[in-house]
Amino acid sequence: MILCDIGNTSLHFLDDEKGEFKESVLAFNPKTFQEKVYYISVNKALSKELKNLGNWIDLEPFIERDGYYDTMGIDRIFALQTTQNGVIVDVGSAVTVDVVRDGVYEGGFIYPGKIAMQSCYSGISPALEYPFHFEFNQKKLAKNSQDAISYGYLKLLASEVSSYALPITLTGGDAEEFSKLFRKNLTIKKRVIFEGMQKVVKQL
Amino acid sequence: MILCDIGNTSLHFLDDEKGEFKESVLAFNPKTFQEKVYYISVNKALSKELKNLGNWIDLEPFIERDGYYDTMGIDRIFALQTTQNGVIVDVGSAVTVDVVRDGVYEGGFIYPGKIAMQSCYSGISPALEYPFHFEFNQKKLAKNSQDAISYGYLKLLASEVSSYALPITLTGGDAEEFSKLFRKNLTIKKRVIFEGMQKVVKQL
Repeated sequence: MILCDIGNTSLHFLDDEKGEFKESVLAFNPKTFQEKVYYISVNKALSKELKNLGNWIDLEPFIERDGYYDTMGIDRIFALQTTQNGVIVDVGSAVTVDVVRDGVYEGGFIYPGKIAMQSCYSGISPALEYPFHFEFNQKKLAKNSQDAISYGYLKLLASEVSSYALPITLTGGDAEEFSKLFRKNLTIKKRVIFEGMQKVVKQL
Repeated sequence: MILCDIGNTSLHFLDDEKGEFKESVLAFNPKTFQEKVYYISVNKALSKELKNLGNWIDLEPFIERDGYYDTMGIDRIFALQTTQNGVIVDVGSAVTVDVVRDGVYEGGFIYPGKIAMQSCYSGISPALEYPFHFEFNQKKLAKNSQDAISYGYLKLLASEVSSYALPITLTGGDAEEFSKLFRKNLTIKKRVIFEGMQKVVKQL
């Protein structure tokens, strides 16, 4: 089975045989694939092209979009197919947090990613130009500037996410680093979108 | 009595008779004041000049700096003189949060101010370019993009500040707007630094 998560600049594949690989949208030719490919896509131009190819199967129509919101990315929605009770935290350029309880999507929120937040602080004052400290003591308010911004950015996020008292799944490029914020109930899953897609494929 | 809070670009006065007024550092001549002026200052050049004038009295030596941290602004420390049990939240270009319990400074944290955070989100993606919604429902996770960033920025701050279970004092330029985040235990005090100075003067 081949799965493909299509973004605006690249296609991310998971092939049972070849493993994971990426192709750029510009260099991509869908006709080089003879096998069945199950995909999701946020790339409208490419989706239109793929509709005419019998072996490319869009998974989006096979899930219920009700309960999610219109501008919510299809990748976030597929990640949520993997859990009936859990929080999915995707840490990249933004941090998206989504909560499912008893199979129902409760909603979520968006927080800045590490790089954006760091330049946000240093833009306020050069005195706040520090890297974040991920292993600060979350139980103690800060008494120096580096801890003061680390606490502001990271403790507030950790408290909110932990407050749901649900299993936490971390995904995205900075998952390892952000995992230091949570002591328990934590899984790092780099392939959570593919897992969601696999689950939907099995139900076809 | 005249009180003066000296910053890097302006001097902020509170005069028993004339009320509040500001002067720019550049235009300022301390010799125009014949009366006693009690001041605090983060402006080193000006502090040096004022040391030679008998009627300008620096209040900094009259408080105990132990327990605070070295890079902490003297204005934040004077604001903290007003409470034995409380949280002081100063909302301006940054949001500084400081906690005092039983007269002891526990520490604090620094969070981005409204304008910095808004451009942080819109820098991540134009899809996140919304003004913050201060009167969103804090009890419900978001199901649209504007609520998703408002929740991320404001609910996380409100939860943390409320978690101390102490009286909250809001000060700074955006105090009115941020007051919408808190239901109880809240006072807006625009002059909290002057209040701290008055308290120290009374003990001289």
